[in-house]
Amino acid sequence: MPEQTFPLNTWYAAAWSHEIKRELSARTVCDKDIVLYRRSDGEVTALEDACWHRLLPLSMGRLQGDQVVCGYHGLVFNAAGRCTFMPAQKTINPSACVRAYPVAERHRLVWVWPGDPALADPTKIPDFHWNDGADWVGEGGTFYGLKCDYRLVIDNLMDLTHETYVHSGSIGDEAITSAPFEVTHTDRTATVTRWMIGIEPPPFWAKNLGRPGPVDRWQIIYFQAPSTIVGDVGVAVAGTGAPQGDRSQGVNGAFLAAITPETEKSCHYFWNFVRTFRKDDEEFTRALQRAHVNDGQGVYDQDHAVLEAQQKAIDRNPRMPFYNLNIDAGALWARRLIDRMLDEEHSQRIPVPSAAAE
Amino acid sequence: MPEQTFPLNTWYAAAWSHEIKRELSARTVCDKDIVLYRRSDGEVTALEDACWHRLLPLSMGRLQGDQVVCGYHGLVFNAAGRCTFMPAQKTINPSACVRAYPVAERHRLVWVWPGDPALADPTKIPDFHWNDGADWVGEGGTFYGLKCDYRLVIDNLMDLTHETYVHSGSIGDEAITSAPFEVTHTDRTATVTRWMIGIEPPPFWAKNLGRPGPVDRWQIIYFQAPSTIVGDVGVAVAGTGAPQGDRSQGVNGAFLAAITPETEKSCHYFWNFVRTFRKDDEEFTRALQRAHVNDGQGVYDQDHAVLEAQQKAIDRNPRMPFYNLNIDAGALWARRLIDRMLDEEHSQRIPVPSAAAE
Amino acid sequence: MPEQTFPLNTWYAAAWSHEIKRELSARTVCDKDIVLYRRSDGEVTALEDACWHRLLPLSMGRLQGDQVVCGYHGLVFNAAGRCTFMPAQKTINPSACVRAYPVAERHRLVWVWPGDPALADPTKIPDFHWNDGADWVGEGGTFYGLKCDYRLVIDNLMDLTHETYVHSGSIGDEAITSAPFEVTHTDRTATVTRWMIGIEPPPFWAKNLGRPGPVDRWQIIYFQAPSTIVGDVGVAVAGTGAPQGDRSQGVNGAFLAAITPETEKSCHYFWNFVRTFRKDDEEFTRALQRAHVNDGQGVYDQDHAVLEAQQKAIDRNPRMPFYNLNIDAGALWARRLIDRMLDEEHSQRIPVPSAAAE
Repeated sequence: MPEQTFPLNTWYAAAWSHEIKRELSARTVCDKDIVLYRRSDGEVTALEDACWHRLLPLSMGRLQGDQVVCGYHGLVFNAAGRCTFMPAQKTINPSACVRAYPVAERHRLVWVWPGDPALADPTKIPDFHWNDGADWVGEGGTFYGLKCDYRLVIDNLMDLTHETYVHSGSIGDEAITSAPFEVTHTDRTATVTRWMIGIEPPPFWAKNLGRPGPVDRWQIIYFQAPSTIVGDVGVAVAGTGAPQGDRSQGVNGAFLAAITPETEKSCHYFWNFVRTFRKDDEEFTRALQRAHVNDGQGVYDQDHAVLEAQQKAIDRNPRMPFYNLNIDAGALWARRLIDRMLDEEHSQRIPVPSAAAE
Repeated sequence: MPEQTFPLNTWYAAAWSHEIKRELSARTVCDKDIVLYRRSDGEVTALEDACWHRLLPLSMGRLQGDQVVCGYHGLVFNAAGRCTFMPAQKTINPSACVRAYPVAERHRLVWVWPGDPALADPTKIPDFHWNDGADWVGEGGTFYGLKCDYRLVIDNLMDLTHETYVHSGSIGDEAITSAPFEVTHTDRTATVTRWMIGIEPPPFWAKNLGRPGPVDRWQIIYFQAPSTIVGDVGVAVAGTGAPQGDRSQGVNGAFLAAITPETEKSCHYFWNFVRTFRKDDEEFTRALQRAHVNDGQGVYDQDHAVLEAQQKAIDRNPRMPFYNLNIDAGALWARRLIDRMLDEEHSQRIPVPSAAAE
Repeated sequence: MPEQTFPLNTWYAAAWSHEIKRELSARTVCDKDIVLYRRSDGEVTALEDACWHRLLPLSMGRLQGDQVVCGYHGLVFNAAGRCTFMPAQKTINPSACVRAYPVAERHRLVWVWPGDPALADPTKIPDFHWNDGADWVGEGGTFYGLKCDYRLVIDNLMDLTHETYVHSGSIGDEAITSAPFEVTHTDRTATVTRWMIGIEPPPFWAKNLGRPGPVDRWQIIYFQAPSTIVGDVGVAVAGTGAPQGDRSQGVNGAFLAAITPETEKSCHYFWNFVRTFRKDDEEFTRALQRAHVNDGQGVYDQDHAVLEAQQKAIDRNPRMPFYNLNIDAGALWARRLIDRMLDEEHSQRIPVPSAAAE
């Protein structure tokens, strides 16, 4: 059994809010099979997706009011996971239940806590307000079941020099590679800041800035452990004070990533690209979405291919750990914070109090 | 190596009689690869499906009279598994042979005995006379390579409350779940008997009974260890004595199942649904067959989906044994009888006398 | 970990020369992922196909002059495997490199040496001059990723009695099975010689000899350890001295095989069938190629099916070693020579000096 690579006592995005309706949806998070549904009060429930009785996925059953009816023998479980009906018997075994996972909806996503429910704290949901659809606008998507360790996606996003090579035909730019950057961190966050001062803007930014001449370009990548990333990116007219905080002469976007381990070697990658300019231009929104993911032609599709190939190579070459370059400083801090969470969790590990027998 | 879950010293259905012709057919039974063919005298032979010499499946070769010619180097094996020809040499290694499995044809099925040939006893072939095509009429089929432990099929059939949920759109009926039942057993058999007295008949039975009014409905499920099940089902006009044995005012059918382990996690499920009414109506026969299996639309197709999903869930949730309900009493007896057979076999285990080196 | 079945300190065919161009080609040899490309000086380079930094296959990158640029972060490796560029840093870690495999081009094939580079000796490249396209003419092909242990292909070719059974519809002939043969060997080679004196020629040879009457037919199979085979085959008018060395009254062909382990259970099978007659007849060349491999219809396609089925059977029947017949004498010598190479390699095993960390 390899060591577990993801903390459990944390919130992970499990679905977009709009995906969870008055019907059963199956999702695997941290190797745990979960069935999700929206109750009549509008809240979301997340239960263990295996009937207490014979393990059939409850997601193969049906919703009855706010309860789930198993599709095999009709056992019924309420939103707390407790069995409320057993076929052909009046007495219900009081231990009959399935795990109920703490769940919360925020920033247009449904978050679940796969670990000890007693520790679930909604204030620990990652700050992902860029995704709210208010100040920032954009429509993203999800790579469900991306076949790589979730940390490879983090490595990818914490260092944007890869854009120069993976996305050489589109957003790549030699300036990224040559610009210096700085990494700072707190207990739970790491930030990579890169400023490219007085450069020629790449085509995308030049067009949206709408003014000729050199720019100051920024990429500020903000990681919240264990697996949420916000990349604040943009350009402003050179010398107008953007590095000092005045972005009034610029255009600003942000790439958002909530990466959820599915198994040790696969993950769900919730992404978005949002912006504060041309916010009402829905055609532009759709064009940006297609630029990122478009049947294998988008820039994130290129990352997708690289990430899955990298995982295969890791499986074939068990000579970990990786060798590192200066550019990996941000990714290394991210992994260090993840490792800390794993260590904390490991040292605190006590039997999970749960009504379900495990 | 997990513990073996199926007894070997017993008869298992390997094919329908009509499937075995004057040609080579491959079948895996209890993890043993077997080649089957019909000899010129009309009897069936079952040999180990791997050439003594270089292991090529003999089923890739050809029949020469009643002998099998290997498709690689032409070694010939007779119906006893003994090598009778080796290429380019006159002396034949006397130890050169493949295993010959005891085989018997009965009740329109070909049965093989994968264990010690010395113990093979034709009187132990399960009673499956319902399938003979005489008193009872019907045409079934086989789910070859159903991806689940054969015992999950037994669990499924020994408790028909699942019909209410899995087959809610067709044969399911709340009356099944609410009716009491009784389980009896012998050394090698278990029987679940359920009577629903004075109920409204479900549509299928109402139509075939052809008379209005309440009925007495029965489901008598007869298990013969390790894996044969006959379900005697029907309805009679209420109060005409069916529970006491007089079925003259009723209609009677039987579902038949011979379930053969292919591997630890897959099986061949030979099924039929036979009846004693409208016996000459061939269109009805075909309609009943289609009602059970029809490109994913039949009632057994629904079980198929549930059984394979259940096996996957078991593989992901190694928290066996199952929790049980009252409704599982029949299945539990079936498993208990299987376990007894396994224990007996284990305690008697001595090297299998076989000409083939193993 | 099963014992390794292929020696590493030897030359294996990795590609046809015409397949390696000014672009990156991936190939797995002896479980080692390799990227091949032709340099501007026309020579071929073979590097480890996993970037030193993050393991992405270099074959997903691009060629820049004679160097390879990784497709993820742009690290550049020269043809010696040494890193010459790292993004965003001026100092290059001197240990940063990937393995460079010794490579040689000869006989229209590209050969690589997967073992200790210090031992690579071009004089040890197998004699495969029949493939040069000069004295002998023919066009072959490759079964890449044939799903069997490379030694099964050797077994297949070292004993041609299988032609009688596998290729009964085409080149098979009872005379092969009944004719005696002789096996000789040296330290690194084994030779099976079979003469069929005064027989009726099979259709292919009769037609190409162009003269009626009996022939002396030969099959002289020459094995060079670990996995190169040349089968000198032909017929001459009976009694004209062919067994004594005078083939002037005959027609002569040769089947060529260079078999390269890809993994323990798969291989690349480079084949050709060449001849010394009708050398200018290109239509005949194409017809012969199609006769061997033709969308599953050629004689080698028949072997392909047998070999993969045999591997599957071996995986299911771990009762090795095989039983042997007289006809296996040639194959047994081949395996003995392979085993000797493995023993030698094992006894000499010292840490491979390599700049890459392993």
